Amino acid sequence: MSTSPDAVTSSRSPAAASKGRWQPVGLGQARITGGFWAPRQVRNGESAIPSGQDQLETAGNLQNLRLAAGIGDGEAIGPVFADSDVYKWLEAAAWEYGRNPNEDLLKRQRELTAVVAAAQREDGYLDSVVQLRYGDEGRYQQLVWSHEHYCAGHLIQAAVAQVRCTGDRELLDVAIKLADHLVATFGDDKTVDVDGHPVIEMALVELYRETGTPSYLGLAKWFVEARGHGIIKEHGHEPTYFSDRLPVREATTVEGHSVRAVYLAAGAADVAIETGDTELLDALKRQFDHMWSTKTYITGGLGARWEGEAFGDEYELPPDRAYAETCAAIGGIQWAWRMLLATGEASYADALERMLYNGFLAGVSLNGTEYFYVNPLQLRGGAHPDNGRSPAHGRRGWFDCACCPPNIMRTLASLDGYLASSGDGAIQLHQYVAGVVRAGGVELQIQTNYPWDGAVRITADEPAAVDLRIPAWAEGATVNGKPVEAGTYARVEAAEIDLQLPMATRVVAADPRVDAVRGCVALERGPLVYAVEQADQQANVDDLHLLPEAAVAASHDDGLLDGVTVLTTRGRPGTGHREGWPFTPSSADATGDEVDVVAVPYYAWANREMGAMRVWLPRA
Amino acid sequence: MSTSPDAVTSSRSPAAASKGRWQPVGLGQARITGGFWAPRQVRNGESAIPSGQDQLETAGNLQNLRLAAGIGDGEAIGPVFADSDVYKWLEAAAWEYGRNPNEDLLKRQRELTAVVAAAQREDGYLDSVVQLRYGDEGRYQQLVWSHEHYCAGHLIQAAVAQVRCTGDRELLDVAIKLADHLVATFGDDKTVDVDGHPVIEMALVELYRETGTPSYLGLAKWFVEARGHGIIKEHGHEPTYFSDRLPVREATTVEGHSVRAVYLAAGAADVAIETGDTELLDALKRQFDHMWSTKTYITGGLGARWEGEAFGDEYELPPDRAYAETCAAIGGIQWAWRMLLATGEASYADALERMLYNGFLAGVSLNGTEYFYVNPLQLRGGAHPDNGRSPAHGRRGWFDCACCPPNIMRTLASLDGYLASSGDGAIQLHQYVAGVVRAGGVELQIQTNYPWDGAVRITADEPAAVDLRIPAWAEGATVNGKPVEAGTYARVEAAEIDLQLPMATRVVAADPRVDAVRGCVALERGPLVYAVEQADQQANVDDLHLLPEAAVAASHDDGLLDGVTVLTTRGRPGTGHREGWPFTPSSADATGDEVDVVAVPYYAWANREMGAMRVWLPRA
Repeated sequence: MSTSPDAVTSSRSPAAASKGRWQPVGLGQARITGGFWAPRQVRNGESAIPSGQDQLETAGNLQNLRLAAGIGDGEAIGPVFADSDVYKWLEAAAWEYGRNPNEDLLKRQRELTAVVAAAQREDGYLDSVVQLRYGDEGRYQQLVWSHEHYCAGHLIQAAVAQVRCTGDRELLDVAIKLADHLVATFGDDKTVDVDGHPVIEMALVELYRETGTPSYLGLAKWFVEARGHGIIKEHGHEPTYFSDRLPVREATTVEGHSVRAVYLAAGAADVAIETGDTELLDALKRQFDHMWSTKTYITGGLGARWEGEAFGDEYELPPDRAYAETCAAIGGIQWAWRMLLATGEASYADALERMLYNGFLAGVSLNGTEYFYVNPLQLRGGAHPDNGRSPAHGRRGWFDCACCPPNIMRTLASLDGYLASSGDGAIQLHQYVAGVVRAGGVELQIQTNYPWDGAVRITADEPAAVDLRIPAWAEGATVNGKPVEAGTYARVEAAEIDLQLPMATRVVAADPRVDAVRGCVALERGPLVYAVEQADQQANVDDLHLLPEAAVAASHDDGLLDGVTVLTTRGRPGTGHREGWPFTPSSADATGDEVDVVAVPYYAWANREMGAMRVWLPRA
Repeated sequence: MSTSPDAVTSSRSPAAASKGRWQPVGLGQARITGGFWAPRQVRNGESAIPSGQDQLETAGNLQNLRLAAGIGDGEAIGPVFADSDVYKWLEAAAWEYGRNPNEDLLKRQRELTAVVAAAQREDGYLDSVVQLRYGDEGRYQQLVWSHEHYCAGHLIQAAVAQVRCTGDRELLDVAIKLADHLVATFGDDKTVDVDGHPVIEMALVELYRETGTPSYLGLAKWFVEARGHGIIKEHGHEPTYFSDRLPVREATTVEGHSVRAVYLAAGAADVAIETGDTELLDALKRQFDHMWSTKTYITGGLGARWEGEAFGDEYELPPDRAYAETCAAIGGIQWAWRMLLATGEASYADALERMLYNGFLAGVSLNGTEYFYVNPLQLRGGAHPDNGRSPAHGRRGWFDCACCPPNIMRTLASLDGYLASSGDGAIQLHQYVAGVVRAGGVELQIQTNYPWDGAVRITADEPAAVDLRIPAWAEGATVNGKPVEAGTYARVEAAEIDLQLPMATRVVAADPRVDAVRGCVALERGPLVYAVEQADQQANVDDLHLLPEAAVAASHDDGLLDGVTVLTTRGRPGTGHREGWPFTPSSADATGDEVDVVAVPYYAWANREMGAMRVWLPRA
């Protein structure tokens, strides 16, 4: 049974918040039709998603599910969370179908869905690796590491996407059976335990939004509230890594494994929205604000430490050893989006934009099929890759731990769903893309070459109330010629809207508490953070100092890196280097001849040969 | 059978190099009798070594060996390298007995030695954890991780120390049987494999020096030469971590796990010295020089990364996330000592001094029984300990992986052996301590309050040729009133020698390629690097800027931290902090009122309450 996407009535949104201040506009109602993002979505749909299925076949993830379904003989392969990559792929395929229906992709989804359904145990349990390795007796024996709820969460998210975008209910039936099993198994009078890796919280709330079944919201709330009461510690583990040191509503910061922390926070935001829990929402506001002011890279990258893939301490933000996992940027986007819908505060949309255009987008190559797991802000020339995730390898087609690639796929395929919302008697435009947004009976046609150009022209089929996000960096912005305040939403009621966002280059420095980039500056233009790559320089990037008084020129180059606006300024190489012991009373300075310094958008780095790269450059 | 230490004829040196340029003066011939180090050795002997045995009992290490010896029933406890901590303790006890004979300590060693001997298999194999967990069939099945040679190496080192200091041959017999088993098992026509953790190389050379058996030197050479030819990679592991990416004689830098790298290098230096292999020695010179100029902290700390406990890339030296494992400083000292004996170059003694007084000594508390595994150069106020090794915990009595504490014990107990050498027709004094050195029929009495004071008075019982190390930092030094060149050995022939090392405070900055401390300075005086601890400050250390033009006053405080020379200068807190997003076009500056800034020796930090600490302070 094939269902036309237009016949699907449920909101085709990745987070169909029902009770926030604003309601998201789902895929189909919001459509990216051109500009910056459209070709990226095409490559995601045409190259990344098909090749991702091949990678899942090669790595054994699909085979695990077939074996659990009784098809063939063998042992489970790969990490215990292998199923989750399949589910993220299924979710990506569903959004892609919602964005751009394609019978071949529908067929692939249905075939895979049938395998997943066949792998499910009669009582609803499903985790192919645990089933194959440990059997029924092995369930939930070490939930702190087993990722059983994590895999369940991704399955549920895929199922919700599938029903919303294809109308198919087969995966939803699996998800409901699994969720019912979880409801029957976990809770105060049942098994009191939490998964070491959150995501089930977001997933159960979304399943509640889809089905209206209150017990799913109840269990999501229970999982959120269960954290921070010693469960992980009782299993003999240090709780910080697992976001289990403090109750969510008492925590004042994010800490531990960055992806786990932001996934939990996003799920807690969903719970807060759907249960009207303002205390919990306020706690999440504090945590997001603290993260954003003390534990976030200028790229929006999250996670300063390789060790434990963790947020570090306040202001611990080394550019070279930034972990800034691509999945953490994605989780950050999901959290910011939920906070935005709940509160209507423009700062969350600004944060989302920063993560989207920089920390997230750097994780995928221009051709769409090669990835970074780790997204540093500096790579030295000759850096030695001693780890499969090392950026010094360059982008890679897949990883042993392959969480990032399908996570990128589902994010790009569902990006239309993060553009706009409705509420307060208006349509909100959060991200500026060439496209169409339909809401409240109004259709907005949006024309823009953003982020290269700050002009956004919006044409409504009738005069409409529109809230336009004016980014905090856009001082001097105008709407229909009138100045508007940066860092807020500007309300306009018109059929023709002309938004002008100034695109002056910004030379920014860090708060002095960010020790690792003291004495350095970075270049930004619009939502983009820039990077200086060796490929574009006359001088050695490891050794290049910017002249901060020099002018910065911006020019668009259609032939470079699929078309980017390039920034050019002046610098000076350091030539006072000492040999031998590097710590002496005399400090060398940058004394070489002036050279041009060329910066390209950070997201586009490492698409040519690998070489030195810096976002932060010392001031000469 | 008890042997008086004075009757022991073999050199009581931790590395009895026979063919280097200089020969070490062993324990007994060189004696620390007072000054800076004597009370530290007393605390090591009276507190640390006895409590270390208790810790080994509590942690199960001793029980493992008893079980392997057939005493009692049970399973092996703890990490696979558990035996090595026992052997390091035995080595420490041997040196301590050599330094300061004590019947109780001899009795403890003999009891433990008897257990070790009983645990050994008939064919010479010995590894209690492998024997208990995997049986004879489990031997050498995963040498990359099993640490079987690592444990053997530490056993051999303990046995050599024991026979040199007590005359007891019981542990030496075990070591010889084990070494003969290794010779029979590993080599070109036998098992071709290497241990993932070097140390066996140094150990086998020392056993060769002790016994004269050429096959031990031959196997040590074979283990050194076997690295870098793909053995580790064939086992499916990335070779960098294991110092197995390149042949030792081809490598130009140190990389991977820092302790493994420097232990291997020290063993390779031993092989080069004993085999007269100048090509290998030259390769090690290049590697040491590269390490010292690009991968060493100002404290002499080695290892920039928590992830993989690794050396990082060139100039990657973050102060806050420095790993700088205490064991790496110890391995660095061992490597530098061997290079010094081989070459006679003063820079190695300077390096040894820097590691000894800073990176090493910071690893043990003033009371001698609490330890740091990790030795950062910055701790932020409120830093959250999310790891058992985190310095934010403060010093700890023991660790799950307890390599560092007994390593400190054996180093302090054998420190007398690193003071002096003979050769080139003279006695060399490398480290200045209050004590006695006898060599070549001459006895030197040394009086000094170094490192607090730069005056060293040496009285010989007859006019003697003495080579005095003039540290590279000691510009303006004089010997008997005459200027001598810093960074060399100054030859003097006299019965009364008056060495004056200038002790001016040095305000040093880093080569600009050390990105992580750009715009900062550090304070040094003599061999000591200083740190600013919150306990001594009026202002917040996280936020304190030094006035680089301000004078620095030095004054000795007998009551502080067991007596330290304190440095006092002026600084300014930063008060221009922004709230919220920390990366903006306007950079805040340090604009608060001037305050005193008080610095104490880095080695003494974290002996009061834990708080913020910085070695590198930004310049106002």
